[in-house]
Amino acid sequence: MTASGVPEGSIPVLDHGFVRLDDAMASDLSVVNAARVSFARRKEEIEPEDEGLIGFLLRNRHGTPFEHNSFRFHVRCPIFVMREWIRHRWSSFNEFSMRYSQASGDFYVPAAEDVRQQVGKPGVYFFEAVEPELAQRARTEIETTNEAAYATYRRLIEAGVARELARTVLPVAAYTEFFWTVNARSLMNFLSLRNAETAQREIRRYAEAIESLFAERMPLTHAAFVAAGRTPP
Amino acid sequence: MTASGVPEGSIPVLDHGFVRLDDAMASDLSVVNAARVSFARRKEEIEPEDEGLIGFLLRNRHGTPFEHNSFRFHVRCPIFVMREWIRHRWSSFNEFSMRYSQASGDFYVPAAEDVRQQVGKPGVYFFEAVEPELAQRARTEIETTNEAAYATYRRLIEAGVARELARTVLPVAAYTEFFWTVNARSLMNFLSLRNAETAQREIRRYAEAIESLFAERMPLTHAAFVAAGRTPP
Amino acid sequence: MTASGVPEGSIPVLDHGFVRLDDAMASDLSVVNAARVSFARRKEEIEPEDEGLIGFLLRNRHGTPFEHNSFRFHVRCPIFVMREWIRHRWSSFNEFSMRYSQASGDFYVPAAEDVRQQVGKPGVYFFEAVEPELAQRARTEIETTNEAAYATYRRLIEAGVARELARTVLPVAAYTEFFWTVNARSLMNFLSLRNAETAQREIRRYAEAIESLFAERMPLTHAAFVAAGRTPP
Amino acid sequence: MTASGVPEGSIPVLDHGFVRLDDAMASDLSVVNAARVSFARRKEEIEPEDEGLIGFLLRNRHGTPFEHNSFRFHVRCPIFVMREWIRHRWSSFNEFSMRYSQASGDFYVPAAEDVRQQVGKPGVYFFEAVEPELAQRARTEIETTNEAAYATYRRLIEAGVARELARTVLPVAAYTEFFWTVNARSLMNFLSLRNAETAQREIRRYAEAIESLFAERMPLTHAAFVAAGRTPP
Repeated sequence: MTASGVPEGSIPVLDHGFVRLDDAMASDLSVVNAARVSFARRKEEIEPEDEGLIGFLLRNRHGTPFEHNSFRFHVRCPIFVMREWIRHRWSSFNEFSMRYSQASGDFYVPAAEDVRQQVGKPGVYFFEAVEPELAQRARTEIETTNEAAYATYRRLIEAGVARELARTVLPVAAYTEFFWTVNARSLMNFLSLRNAETAQREIRRYAEAIESLFAERMPLTHAAFVAAGRTPP
Repeated sequence: MTASGVPEGSIPVLDHGFVRLDDAMASDLSVVNAARVSFARRKEEIEPEDEGLIGFLLRNRHGTPFEHNSFRFHVRCPIFVMREWIRHRWSSFNEFSMRYSQASGDFYVPAAEDVRQQVGKPGVYFFEAVEPELAQRARTEIETTNEAAYATYRRLIEAGVARELARTVLPVAAYTEFFWTVNARSLMNFLSLRNAETAQREIRRYAEAIESLFAERMPLTHAAFVAAGRTPP
Repeated sequence: MTASGVPEGSIPVLDHGFVRLDDAMASDLSVVNAARVSFARRKEEIEPEDEGLIGFLLRNRHGTPFEHNSFRFHVRCPIFVMREWIRHRWSSFNEFSMRYSQASGDFYVPAAEDVRQQVGKPGVYFFEAVEPELAQRARTEIETTNEAAYATYRRLIEAGVARELARTVLPVAAYTEFFWTVNARSLMNFLSLRNAETAQREIRRYAEAIESLFAERMPLTHAAFVAAGRTPP
Repeated sequence: MTASGVPEGSIPVLDHGFVRLDDAMASDLSVVNAARVSFARRKEEIEPEDEGLIGFLLRNRHGTPFEHNSFRFHVRCPIFVMREWIRHRWSSFNEFSMRYSQASGDFYVPAAEDVRQQVGKPGVYFFEAVEPELAQRARTEIETTNEAAYATYRRLIEAGVARELARTVLPVAAYTEFFWTVNARSLMNFLSLRNAETAQREIRRYAEAIESLFAERMPLTHAAFVAAGRTPP
């Protein structure tokens, strides 16, 4: 842990969150070898022409060659973000348990520029910043409400009420923590939906951090994904 | 909808929730026929000796014959219950969205006899009711805190803040709604973990309602599951 | 069973195969209701404007509303077709077992017009019928070889060799039988890959039969799938 | 490749097959850290008391901590073995394609001591070696039949018939090759069913090789699996 409470090597996200790559078994070579087993060929190193093969596989929805790898992430985010994240079923999650452990007291409060209003009609919504004064008032209201909920939570626990019950008053702005293990195919599906215009801004910030770590480890696959208009295979 | 706001034909659960079987394609016969395709035999009706076959399949972990059926449930439950439910990945969920729709203002407040304390050591916890006075005080605190959060939520929305942001102050006690579609194999796994001593009481109430609907539709399979010590195949 | 050995109500495919819809819990309304739970609305009947909603969901990759339904098919096909079929993991299979039951003696022999040659280069292959004389010779060779394998299989069994070992000489042209249960989302993924130019002709014939049964039960969803260029959600 | 056609570092299985661990991201520590995220604790190294935790998780069906790791295997086996293997859906496969590549001409012929008869009644079958004379005769019949099928296959291809069609005469004894990527939870499920009395002997030999590679990388998890009676979590 660093002084800020963020583990070393992690990318800070929002006011109290982070994304950290805990471990990975991932390379563009694994895609190439998985595809080439169709022809009983295997390589020890990636070669220039493999870029074309990776693009071909991705564009033509040959998805399985992108599954022979694994990323394990350690994430800290608000509950409302995690609730969207966990919809991605082809991956593995282990989360901090508020049934038995005590909640941390960290809650998401949006930065002033992130206090926004929804504009437009169903299906074509977009968001605009609100006036600075409202932004400040909203931040104060959110912070006060979250702190009051946390105070109730602490009082209930001190009075002897079970944690699993006391936690019910905590807002979905409360931070949680989890490990997430996922392969590149499922990861690209996640990125296509969560690092996107239509995603809620807060999960999008996490998806951006995830995407940068993915791009480092599998640069040719990432480039092919971008070139294909971010459509997963 | 009935006067109480609960759809007809549904089973009320907790203070504002319900479980309703929306539709099903399910019978014990489907298990028997799926198993008998191994021998290229198929029946039109269940027969007495099929009870033995279903028990044999279940005890010997032949799981796939229990997958050729489907239950679609409509559920209303607090967010903290749904957060446990959605861990069951081999099934399908569609949930009420608080990004675009307005939260209902219904929050779970435990009945007095459900206000409990945690007793014992890690791994062997159990729960006991607290003193009536504390129970009443806890209920009041929980209710007041939830209502204050909802008031903030409403004020933020009226001031023009986007729903997807205003909702972050809402507690995990807030009710949500979803459709859940699942086959009997995945359902028995759910029941073995959620209608169990170790499950949190609130999700257990839902699992009991689910189990009664399952037992009605697939009585021989349910009986075999119980006879096998509630171990899923 | 009919005189031809094909169950009533089934669609014949290839020389000894069929596809039969054993049961279904499926309607376009289930898509609409699963999507509308986002807004806490539910309908009893499909309405004209729902066609637009289904198209919107499909084009925008909102996949989960298409999962709240189920189709159970009974299929008889050659082993080499089933080996492609079973790659579709988000579905359930129970297959005839040649470990314990005796193989039927039915083998796929292509019709004369299906004896084909591969033309073109990797990535852009296509197929053309061969000369009638070669087609006839190939059919005879295939039939003779399959029958010789079956004769060996029968001799080994009669001599007392275990079925699970004797079956190893049987060709992948041998017919097998299975139950397949799948939801519309996974089914559309299957159709997009198997009722396609790039699919092997034999599995494509099965996928055509499956598609006709799907289109009968969920006509608006099927129409939206076709309109979206057969891209699954 | 070594002189015998088996890649270096691989374990030979049956007459022409092998299992090779291509790569892994796997350690007992990953199980411990995934479980401890529930309590927001993380370790850098495994400690003596962690053995107890791993056993506790496994016996109590806390399965998800065993999913944060990955094994990538390269396998060569007969088609009839692969057909059982691919039933394990929570994992990833890429297989040699006989649509576009030419089959190798390697076929499984059982060793004399593996030519067996099935004894006993349904549900309690077992297998015994046949008389040496029959074993030898069966081996010769199997080999001759497989070679005749391969000769037909070659003749059809030389005459211009498409590989995807010519391959239909090849027996399920033909060797195929694939990459298989799987996590420890799904792997233990595989081992519980395939390295078991009830499994067909040929896939069991592969499962034994897989198990030895798993035990090397995750010794505490493997020991806990064995201690729990080989029941997967």
